[in-house]
Amino acid sequence: MNIGILGYGTIGRGVAALIEELPAEYGVKTLKILDLPQKKAELGALYAATKEEICANPRIDTVVEVLGGNDFAYDCIVMALENGKNVVTSNKEVVSRHMEEFYALAKAHGAYFWCEAAVGGGIPLICSLIDQTAYNQVTEIYGIINGTTNFVLTKMKEEGKTLNEALETARNLGFAERDASADLEGLDMVRKISILSSIAYGGLVSFEKVGHFGIASVTDRILKAAEEMGKTLKFMAYSRRDGNEVFCCVEPVLLDKNHPLSAVNNEFNAVFLNCSRNGELMFYGKGAGSYPTASAVIADILRIKNKAKPYYFNNDAAFSVTPRIKGAKYYVVKNGVGRITESEAEKQNADFYARLM
Amino acid sequence: MNIGILGYGTIGRGVAALIEELPAEYGVKTLKILDLPQKKAELGALYAATKEEICANPRIDTVVEVLGGNDFAYDCIVMALENGKNVVTSNKEVVSRHMEEFYALAKAHGAYFWCEAAVGGGIPLICSLIDQTAYNQVTEIYGIINGTTNFVLTKMKEEGKTLNEALETARNLGFAERDASADLEGLDMVRKISILSSIAYGGLVSFEKVGHFGIASVTDRILKAAEEMGKTLKFMAYSRRDGNEVFCCVEPVLLDKNHPLSAVNNEFNAVFLNCSRNGELMFYGKGAGSYPTASAVIADILRIKNKAKPYYFNNDAAFSVTPRIKGAKYYVVKNGVGRITESEAEKQNADFYARLM
Repeated sequence: MNIGILGYGTIGRGVAALIEELPAEYGVKTLKILDLPQKKAELGALYAATKEEICANPRIDTVVEVLGGNDFAYDCIVMALENGKNVVTSNKEVVSRHMEEFYALAKAHGAYFWCEAAVGGGIPLICSLIDQTAYNQVTEIYGIINGTTNFVLTKMKEEGKTLNEALETARNLGFAERDASADLEGLDMVRKISILSSIAYGGLVSFEKVGHFGIASVTDRILKAAEEMGKTLKFMAYSRRDGNEVFCCVEPVLLDKNHPLSAVNNEFNAVFLNCSRNGELMFYGKGAGSYPTASAVIADILRIKNKAKPYYFNNDAAFSVTPRIKGAKYYVVKNGVGRITESEAEKQNADFYARLM
Repeated sequence: MNIGILGYGTIGRGVAALIEELPAEYGVKTLKILDLPQKKAELGALYAATKEEICANPRIDTVVEVLGGNDFAYDCIVMALENGKNVVTSNKEVVSRHMEEFYALAKAHGAYFWCEAAVGGGIPLICSLIDQTAYNQVTEIYGIINGTTNFVLTKMKEEGKTLNEALETARNLGFAERDASADLEGLDMVRKISILSSIAYGGLVSFEKVGHFGIASVTDRILKAAEEMGKTLKFMAYSRRDGNEVFCCVEPVLLDKNHPLSAVNNEFNAVFLNCSRNGELMFYGKGAGSYPTASAVIADILRIKNKAKPYYFNNDAAFSVTPRIKGAKYYVVKNGVGRITESEAEKQNADFYARLM
């Protein structure tokens, strides 16, 4: 397999390093890496200055897109797929915006499209979810799927840091980007739960329909109040299919201390799946960091190498999407923290919270 | 695919039911089911009285062995593989005794041998472990991999039941066999950690070399004392590779209350893997019960249907196996599973043991 990598940042470097480490008999080789001109000297003969050098390069069969962002990444992925190349991406933004088109293009051109690294870092989550849908109905997904904010909340709680101090620590460790607003507002988790829900329920759960409420105003005082109640405040994504309706939202949640998710700290992610036959499954691992995320990219590359059965998203299930608890807020009551219940729709999910709290 | 099922007990019934539920276009069909004559009337035309009717049946391509036990199951699996049939088994005993031979036979006859259901019930554990070994060194495995004893300890703790009462409840729910001694003594987990370790480290970790200490003498008084210390007593398997040495044991462990495994209750199982590149991964799900275990069998059947890359155990790694803390009793665990540096850990709990043992 001849690989072209788009982007030589934290993840791209990890991918290039892990490809180097693969046993020679796998025959997986990096031919070109695209990045800005300042990386030219470092990359030498590997350096590519334009997307065409990778996405239209006849010697490259598989394109790894780890640029992030939407517009340029979208153009690259479309060009690669239209040229019959397999695409592996870690980019949740572009996948959540265009997954239907990407899978259709891949199918039309007999190519693979995999995006394991887009959700849950190194956790083998999307492949497990796809497997479960073959013999189960997946009816519910919930978990902590943003390493940055989970790291920040952990450091605030354990070390009494302010949100901004904790964020700076996360940046220094490579767990947060300069502009972390998509993380703090929950948009990053919105994209991820949109991807997971779409695959789980077999129909598009548009990221635009996912309700979300961020954690920008969480203080260590709020975290402490939660602790005093015997709870842990976690920033979580939640999705449930109930017949023709899908509820999907991202919000801070108070977890009971004996809930397994309350012990998920730092950059770790964890996701529960509720399956009609297999019951409850949970997957836990590092949701951020160079090697864990790169590991998921490598897993996808090996799926292609091993000619695993391709997966194509079909979008043939019919349901409406409700951004549950739109505009909901957490709030401090006396010495505790609670959630505002805004509507009757909220009550339909009371069982979820009953279980969690 | 034409399936023959060996055994129509709790798991066999689940497998037959889930095969019925698969979409017709998968083309997976049960042709024969072997069991004792008293099931003949119930099974009708599906009934098979001898192993030859399944393992030497030219119309059957894949044999599902869910009999349990060793001798007869061994004969069936060998006959099926020698006849070029794929084998899927949930039987940890026969796999832990004969895995090297089974994989060699499968390879020689171009057949698949999968045993996902043998460890961790419905958790996609063995497939994930195999995937990780392709681009990581897995250096450590630990977790709760016996649903019966975890259920028993949970009921003792939560409902103040005696061990025998809790065991009876487990039997009534189909989570325990009549003779639960292999569970209580840890032999069931010994077999499972032997299988996981062998796959993880690429060499046979014989079940005979795994140290174990059972829970038959655990009382609710011991569980309560652990609680008072802020710990939870869990019955766990542990394995670690350290260069040329593998440590492997099964024992009751005192977990810190904020360790994720301390929240794994009832029939649930959970397993941590420590991977050189991907870091820590954890998988959680139902470790017992008809449908969860059958789900893992179905996952293996679909791997065969989808022509997934076969896995063959090679046994080419060289290491010695140390049954660590042979005869050890209960150890404290700080923030994780015991680095059993005897002295330190033991000292910490000296008073605990002094009171109890």
